[in-house]
Amino acid sequence: MKLDWDKLREATKGQMPEKRWKHTLGVVETAISLANRFGGNAEKAELAALLHDYSKAWQTDRMERIIREEGLSEELLYFDKELWHAHVGAWAVEKEHGIDDPEVLDAIRYHTSGRVGMTLLDRIVCLADYIEPGRDFPGVNKIRKLAEHQLEEALTAGFDSTISLLLEKGKRILPLTVMARNDLIRLRKEQNKGG
Amino acid sequence: MKLDWDKLREATKGQMPEKRWKHTLGVVETAISLANRFGGNAEKAELAALLHDYSKAWQTDRMERIIREEGLSEELLYFDKELWHAHVGAWAVEKEHGIDDPEVLDAIRYHTSGRVGMTLLDRIVCLADYIEPGRDFPGVNKIRKLAEHQLEEALTAGFDSTISLLLEKGKRILPLTVMARNDLIRLRKEQNKGG
Repeated sequence: MKLDWDKLREATKGQMPEKRWKHTLGVVETAISLANRFGGNAEKAELAALLHDYSKAWQTDRMERIIREEGLSEELLYFDKELWHAHVGAWAVEKEHGIDDPEVLDAIRYHTSGRVGMTLLDRIVCLADYIEPGRDFPGVNKIRKLAEHQLEEALTAGFDSTISLLLEKGKRILPLTVMARNDLIRLRKEQNKGG
Repeated sequence: MKLDWDKLREATKGQMPEKRWKHTLGVVETAISLANRFGGNAEKAELAALLHDYSKAWQTDRMERIIREEGLSEELLYFDKELWHAHVGAWAVEKEHGIDDPEVLDAIRYHTSGRVGMTLLDRIVCLADYIEPGRDFPGVNKIRKLAEHQLEEALTAGFDSTISLLLEKGKRILPLTVMARNDLIRLRKEQNKGG
């Protein structure tokens, strides 16, 4: 499928306020750079990064209706609304722009929660979302430093920061994020054995 | 079923070193007191507390063999060995002493991980294990203080301390513990609505 990048950029920009669009451009830049650094597909990384927050600014009611009516996992409704946009976004870019690469759609769908068995593309987009130049939270520079050399270690540190924050705030933690983190720890152990 | 308490105490003491037995007596005392405070069954709390670490000092090989051969959840083998003794212990006290009260067996089985839908007895034994008088870890006094009035809040704080420690150490976190914590947060919200 031939992509009309200009049209995709315009359409994506039109879904969100200026600040979110600036964040998106940061994630695009970072995802391309991570793909080149860690042997990923830079074009897919660019596409998934461009579209990752497509539905982020959508009204909660609209997302809830889509989750219920379009057969998305209703378990989502139980968890933090922060997660809804990722699944709704993957649905929306397929529906509205014919994006049909399952790798790209999965990277959008799991960019917030992570999952067990994250693909290289999943990891790149998820980490880029943590460390794009506009991000500023406790520990982000440590994660950027790790990302210079070790993708999985950096992403684990990203998940650690999310889980810590939710503990502090007394909020629920997504089991899928914990499982994604466990899986990355397992993967790093295997990499260390192999190296 | 009529229990021979003296025999159970002797048998349990015989499974473990002196230090662990002292801990067990602390959990018994605390579990009885929590049961009385929060309307639980003090005799079941005493029994589950007495037996909760029955297999804690058993050899890892022996526990692994039992998990594989006796139809316990093999998923356990993937996680920290710390968790094995709880499931093996529930199996052992049924096999060796005919303990057949499913509530008591569940409280033993889930005293380390927790689970979704923890019974009052589960919560009492799990919290007693965190705060018995011999325990000393960062934040334990805060949890003891909470336990004077609010069982679920205290237990959530206990799980928080476990999850924080595993984050710090770069170790895997049991999704079941996270789900147990999420469920307690949900339960407290409902209690607050009701109150």
